[in-house]
Formats: sequence, C-alpha cells, structure tokens
Amino acid sequence: MYPYRQLFDFTREIFLQMGCPPKDAKLAAEVLLEADLRGVDSHGVARLSGYVRLWEAGRINVTPKLRIVHETPSTATVDGDGGLGLVVAPLAMDIAIAKAEKVGTGWVSVKNSNHFGIAGYHAMEALSSDMIGIAMTNASPLVAPTHSTERMLGTNPIAVAIPTQNQPPFVADFATASAANGKLEILQRKEKKAPIGWIQTAEGEDTDNANELKDGGALLPLGSDLTHGSHKGYALASIVDIFSAVLSGANYGPWVPPFVSFLPVADNLPGEGIGHFLGAMRIDAFRPADEFKTHMDNWIERFRKAKVKKGEKAVLIPGDPEREMTEERLKKGIPLLSPVEKDLEELSKKFGVKL
Amino acid sequence: MYPYRQLFDFTREIFLQMGCPPKDAKLAAEVLLEADLRGVDSHGVARLSGYVRLWEAGRINVTPKLRIVHETPSTATVDGDGGLGLVVAPLAMDIAIAKAEKVGTGWVSVKNSNHFGIAGYHAMEALSSDMIGIAMTNASPLVAPTHSTERMLGTNPIAVAIPTQNQPPFVADFATASAANGKLEILQRKEKKAPIGWIQTAEGEDTDNANELKDGGALLPLGSDLTHGSHKGYALASIVDIFSAVLSGANYGPWVPPFVSFLPVADNLPGEGIGHFLGAMRIDAFRPADEFKTHMDNWIERFRKAKVKKGEKAVLIPGDPEREMTEERLKKGIPLLSPVEKDLEELSKKFGVKL
Repeated sequence: MYPYRQLFDFTREIFLQMGCPPKDAKLAAEVLLEADLRGVDSHGVARLSGYVRLWEAGRINVTPKLRIVHETPSTATVDGDGGLGLVVAPLAMDIAIAKAEKVGTGWVSVKNSNHFGIAGYHAMEALSSDMIGIAMTNASPLVAPTHSTERMLGTNPIAVAIPTQNQPPFVADFATASAANGKLEILQRKEKKAPIGWIQTAEGEDTDNANELKDGGALLPLGSDLTHGSHKGYALASIVDIFSAVLSGANYGPWVPPFVSFLPVADNLPGEGIGHFLGAMRIDAFRPADEFKTHMDNWIERFRKAKVKKGEKAVLIPGDPEREMTEERLKKGIPLLSPVEKDLEELSKKFGVKL
Repeated sequence: MYPYRQLFDFTREIFLQMGCPPKDAKLAAEVLLEADLRGVDSHGVARLSGYVRLWEAGRINVTPKLRIVHETPSTATVDGDGGLGLVVAPLAMDIAIAKAEKVGTGWVSVKNSNHFGIAGYHAMEALSSDMIGIAMTNASPLVAPTHSTERMLGTNPIAVAIPTQNQPPFVADFATASAANGKLEILQRKEKKAPIGWIQTAEGEDTDNANELKDGGALLPLGSDLTHGSHKGYALASIVDIFSAVLSGANYGPWVPPFVSFLPVADNLPGEGIGHFLGAMRIDAFRPADEFKTHMDNWIERFRKAKVKKGEKAVLIPGDPEREMTEERLKKGIPLLSPVEKDLEELSKKFGVKL
C-alpha cells in the first residue's frame, strides 16, 4: 500500500524532471492520481511510464502554449500544442466554465492533445461552480463497429457530473465499449478468461481469450452484439469521436495516434493529436440552483430506495463505488501491482527521484 | 400498403378533429409519420389512438401556449403547457436553433409535455442550419436499474444528427435500454420469444417471455447485465432523465406519467408532465463549416470501408437503415399491422374522417 501523498509527490517530481512547469506538474499528478483514488487503476500511475516513453519519443510537448483557435460566446476550439492531456483538458474545462458563467453553457473541443487521464476528473471540475460537467475523449482504436472486424474507435469514454444539495454528486464515467481495456489488462495479468461479449477474434468470432487483441482481435461496443444493441455502443463511441476530433481538427477513427510509443503514428493524418470535448452547463441557466439541487437529492434518494434484486446489497447511484474507493484509499493507501511497482522503481532510478 | 400521403392526411385530420390549430395538426402528423417512414413502427400511426385516448382523458391540451420560463443567451426552460410533445418539441428545438445562431449553441429543457414521437426527427431539425442536433426525452418507467427489480426509468432515447457535405447525414437515434419496447411489442404480436438480455422477471431473473412486463417484469438497460455494462446503460438513461426533467421541472424516474390513458397518474408528483432536452450546436462555432463537413464525409467514407465480418454485407453508418427504409416506404407505401389498421378504422368512424 502506498500513501496517496507519496505517489502524488513522486508523480509530480517525474513530471517536473520531464520539464513540466511546476504548476503543470502538480496538476498532471493530481489528474493522474485521481484515477488511482477512484479505483480506475489502469488510468493512474500505472500509465506514468507510458507518458515518459511518449515524451522520450518526442510525442509530448511539456511546455505547451494553449491557443483558442476559434470561438463564439458559448464555444471554443483549443489547440493543445501537443501538451499532456492531463494539463490541456483542465485548462480547456476552465474555458468552458468561464463561458458558461457568461452565457449559461460553455463547450470546448480540443485538438493536438494527448491522453487526459480519467474523464470523470474533468467533468467533476464543474461541480464547485454549480454546473453540470461533461467530458469525453477519443482514444487509440481498439473497438470494432457492429458488423466489422477492424479496430476503428477507441473505448471513447463519456463522463457527466451533476451537482446535488446534501447527497454526494452524481458522477457517471464510463467507456463506450462493453468493457474498458483496463478490465481486460487485469484479466491478462491474472491469466484469466474474459466473459463472452467483451472481445472478438480477428475474424469477428466470439472469444474468451483475454489476449486476443494481440492476435488482431477487437473490443466490442457497449451492447456486445447487434441483438443486445452494439449498434448503440458503436453510435455512442462515434459521437464521442466526432465531437472530440471532427469538431476540433484532431485525428479521428482509425487515425487516432496510439498511446504506446512503440507503435508508429500513421502517415497522412487527417488532424493533429487526439481530441477531447468538454462542456459546462450552469444549473441556474435552467432553474434556480437550489430548486434543481433539491430535486436532484430527491432523484437520488428515490433511486437508492428502489427495490433490490435478491442477493444484491443496494441500487447504486453513478459515482458511489468510486467515492467509496476514494475514501478507503485516502485512508489505507493505494495498492500497486508488482509490474507497476517495478515500473515506478525504474522511473525512480532513471530520474534520480526517490519513490 | 398505405401511401404516405394517405396516412399523413388522415393523421392531420384526426389532430384537427381533436381541436389542434391547423399548423399544429400538420406538424404533429409530420412528426408522427416520420417514425413510420423510418421504420420505427411502434412510434408512428400505431400510437395515434393512444394520443386520442390521452386527450379524451383530459391529459393533452390541444391549444397549448408555450412559455419560456427561464433563460440565458444559450439556454431556455420551456413550459409545454400540457401540449402534444409532437408540437412542443419542434418549437423548443426552434428556440435552441435561434440561440445557437446568436451564441454558437442553444440548449432547451422542456417540462409539462407529452410523448414527442421519435427523437431523431427533432435532432435532424438542426441539420439544415449546419448545426449538430441533439434530442432526448424521458418516458414512462419500464427499465430497472442495475441490481434493481423496480421499473425506474423509461427507454429514454438519445438522438444526435450531424451535418455532412456529400454523404448523407449521420443520424443516431436509439433507446438507452438494451431493446426498445417497440421491438418487444412486435414479438408479442407474433407470439415469439425474446432474446435473453432484454427483459427480467419481477424477481430480476433472466427470461425470454416477451409478455413478462405484464407480470411485473422490467426491461434491462443497454448492456443487459453488469458484466456487459448495464450500469452504463443505467447511467445513460439517468442522464437523459435528469437533463430532460430535473433541469426543466418535469416528472422524473418512476413518477413519469404513463403514455397509456388506462394507467393512473401518481399523486404528489415532483414535476409537470414529461420532459425533453434539445440542443443545437453550430458547426462553424468550432471550425469553418466546409472544413467540418469535408472531414465528416471522410469519417463516413472511412467507416464504410472498414473490414466487414464474414456473412455481413457492410459496416453501416448511423442513419443508413432508416434512410433506406424512408426511400422504400415513400415509393412503395407503409405497411400496417392489422391491429393498427383496426385502430385507424375505429378512429375513422369516431371522428367521421375518411381513412
């Protein structure tokens, strides 16, 4: 178990060593570690060495100059200048929030960025301003559209955070694939089988082989198969891709650059970097904030009281499991798998930073 | 087979007989028939007698006076005055579009409305203004949250329409349940079994009984079970419910009034009528419109060329099947099931309107 503070300080120090300005290094560490706190272990410090390798490959600009390249009172398109998504996305969200302050809502599409950590962090940024926050991003292609055998879309997550009065906020944050790649990685490490409906083979057949992606297989969209609505998951992932990248001028679909540095970036790219889409809606742009929040509490209380299936403990509200995990890990520390520990030790040596 | 024109004229005449002003009757008929054209048979003329019964029960105001009750430059909350959703939603979408013209995007939450037909119609309204259109609505509770046996959410659809240059537009329109209730109704009429993963029994067990909803069963969220991401479908349906109803002041969750007139409306409702959420985003609020549309064409062309699974014809773009169906039905006419024909004949007699 590693205390949050220890991993945070280490991560910030690594970003500093990479050349990030102190403010950016702190922000990037905060965003990255939020994943570990919330139990999304695949998106936290486990990825730190991946960011380092991308930087070593010259694919991350540690001193980006963000520019608004296009705007209206309620929108902006931001050029992330090849910066860390962990830094670019919070600044883009600040722009969305500032626009919402003025005209009710703000919507920012971002190009020329990199992986932004967990979508939920960025959506939650809006909560303290009594706004609904929305965050999505495209990502390296791993998911095959319905009827296809080709990886055309990322696991393209959507996060929506909604303010409340006394209840904890509603925070949905989910991949638009039937299972996020992180869940698969856990099965791979434990050498376990995957449930049917998560992955298909290179020929598009069902498989329970958690390593099938290495043999040309693909993840399946939310819904898993056409009968159970995979065309809906495919449509959702497509919407995320278009809002994040076709609106902004980033790369889309199969052209999204891979997160891993050992895979080459394709030639003749249609855009720059990867794309995000961030939104903020003032709740008092629709009705008085107290009124909204009281009803939101009522919504949550009613759903908590919904009849529970035999054998289950409770009906959960989006955000419940992650909040409980955060409380636990702030208290007891964050567990790391041994390959992740090894990764961090290597970073520690490479940069001369104490873990 | 019924020619489109014949069903349109009949439907408009029925709305006129109910007392709708001529402009509203025409609009309502157009929205309703769009479902039949696009092959969403459950949401078209098959529902006409349902609207009539709601009107007879005093639950539809045929001469509503829409009011904006709250607004900012990019948002509005609309009171539908108990009108037909078929009429209220297009007017609310007009407001969203007008706001987008001025400040880049427009977002309208609607309360005190009724069933609005297919979401896709309303989203597509934005296309001719070179805007992305978004439409969602809550609906009578039929879907159980993950871990629950209680019907807490409607099949709460989401539609997103995106402009293109030479390609047909991208139009996604889907229920956030694993299968829409209309698909179940078709199985019921044909006395067929439902696939496992669409419905659960009153106790929350898997079932293939297409009539299970009559015995206290529930539809399942997109994803079907927790392993395959039903918590994501549950979150999506919840977001639609909150945007449509908690933002506007409509009824939400289990309190949404039933579409069928024979079910009572609950006491102590937390809001008024059902709710919708409509959005319009100018594409040139993010980048020059031509640039966006050229890349959108490229996106679509690339996805059409994605490798196809053996035994399948092609990778489809959201909106393809509905567009082909529309072309076919405008040419060959609209097929009606005999119970629907009987329904229309009864309406014909009741109102003295020739079918």
